[in-house]
Amino acid sequence: MKIVAAKQILKANDQLAAENRLRFQHRGVFGVNLVGSPGCGKTTLLESLFRTLRGRVSPAVIEGDIAGQIDADRMTAMGVPVVQINTDGMCHLDANMIAAAWDGLEGDAEQAVDMLIVENVGNLVCTAGYDLGEHLRIVVLSVSEGDDKLVKYPAIFQRSQALVITKMDLLPYTNFNVERVRGDMRRLNPDAEIFAVSALQGDGMDGLADWLAARRSAVPATSRS
Amino acid sequence: MKIVAAKQILKANDQLAAENRLRFQHRGVFGVNLVGSPGCGKTTLLESLFRTLRGRVSPAVIEGDIAGQIDADRMTAMGVPVVQINTDGMCHLDANMIAAAWDGLEGDAEQAVDMLIVENVGNLVCTAGYDLGEHLRIVVLSVSEGDDKLVKYPAIFQRSQALVITKMDLLPYTNFNVERVRGDMRRLNPDAEIFAVSALQGDGMDGLADWLAARRSAVPATSRS
Repeated sequence: MKIVAAKQILKANDQLAAENRLRFQHRGVFGVNLVGSPGCGKTTLLESLFRTLRGRVSPAVIEGDIAGQIDADRMTAMGVPVVQINTDGMCHLDANMIAAAWDGLEGDAEQAVDMLIVENVGNLVCTAGYDLGEHLRIVVLSVSEGDDKLVKYPAIFQRSQALVITKMDLLPYTNFNVERVRGDMRRLNPDAEIFAVSALQGDGMDGLADWLAARRSAVPATSRS
Repeated sequence: MKIVAAKQILKANDQLAAENRLRFQHRGVFGVNLVGSPGCGKTTLLESLFRTLRGRVSPAVIEGDIAGQIDADRMTAMGVPVVQINTDGMCHLDANMIAAAWDGLEGDAEQAVDMLIVENVGNLVCTAGYDLGEHLRIVVLSVSEGDDKLVKYPAIFQRSQALVITKMDLLPYTNFNVERVRGDMRRLNPDAEIFAVSALQGDGMDGLADWLAARRSAVPATSRS
């Protein structure tokens, strides 16, 4: 019974996600689903990314959190249109929440948004199962989390198109082995891109930003209104 | 429909958890449920704790992971009896899994175990809702995760009896504010104990070990066989 119900929920979610993807494409919007553990540095990565991409993309953000609006306030401070979703205990975002949040963003943004980044709830497990309608899923892993996470939480690394290793400025103070992580990722997901950055210090951000801008340009926009 | 089913699952879990707690007490075993984000340092904390508590407690461990047995191998290397649970995608342990794992441990351990530590799946959300039959829940937060986690993930901090702030050796390289976290914890959970440690360097471990040993002695053992 439980398994059937879960499958039905996921099937319904997949249908809603496909609808979201069509809506985004009609508006020429490239959708990114950013996932990772609590405290892996997703918000700081976005702040650094938006600084690096200034003038090249017009981003909007959907922030997913159990409670609070700390991250949404940080996006507002950067002048980025943002909607905060409070999941009230739910451990992941789903396509239905994104549809509702996008309703709010679509009308309000002063200029045409061409990149929507969803910062998911901090969770390396449950977020792996839910398509939100994104074009690209990026998983974030900080060096302070340790280099064994791909072995322990394989699904989310298999189901992402890019891995961003963050907090490289902390590398000298940890026993994190970047080459081990690169090797594990290549085994789990040979086609994924791998970036290593320090969002605080800016190292590696140009490569990530260029790649993301190129991916955005390649989105098959049905029309760009 | 979904909500009712979830409540029924949680109710059934609570009953199994109560049975686990009785079983532990009959054997004079003190049960601890260790929760926290992926990579917050739960396993390294256990290694340091067992070194500090050597000769004072006879621990056993249940390791919960999505996949792999890295952490169980680390416990075996320390001579600590361990059972690895692979949840195969499940985002938390439940009382039923603990009952099965304890079946394995109870018979095999060469000497009488008096402290069972369950290292839960790395997850700051879903683990909050599941009583495993423990006497004590400890939540771990590393300084590299940032000091805003209590605002974003309040439930797990409200439902734990102690907070251990880990990786204090990384503090100089982060903007983590220990006093902010202490204040947030006192507001969410005034009765909780708060420890700040570096498990790698040993700082603060004596205080945590002494407190845990005292808590173990206070467990109302129905009989100690």
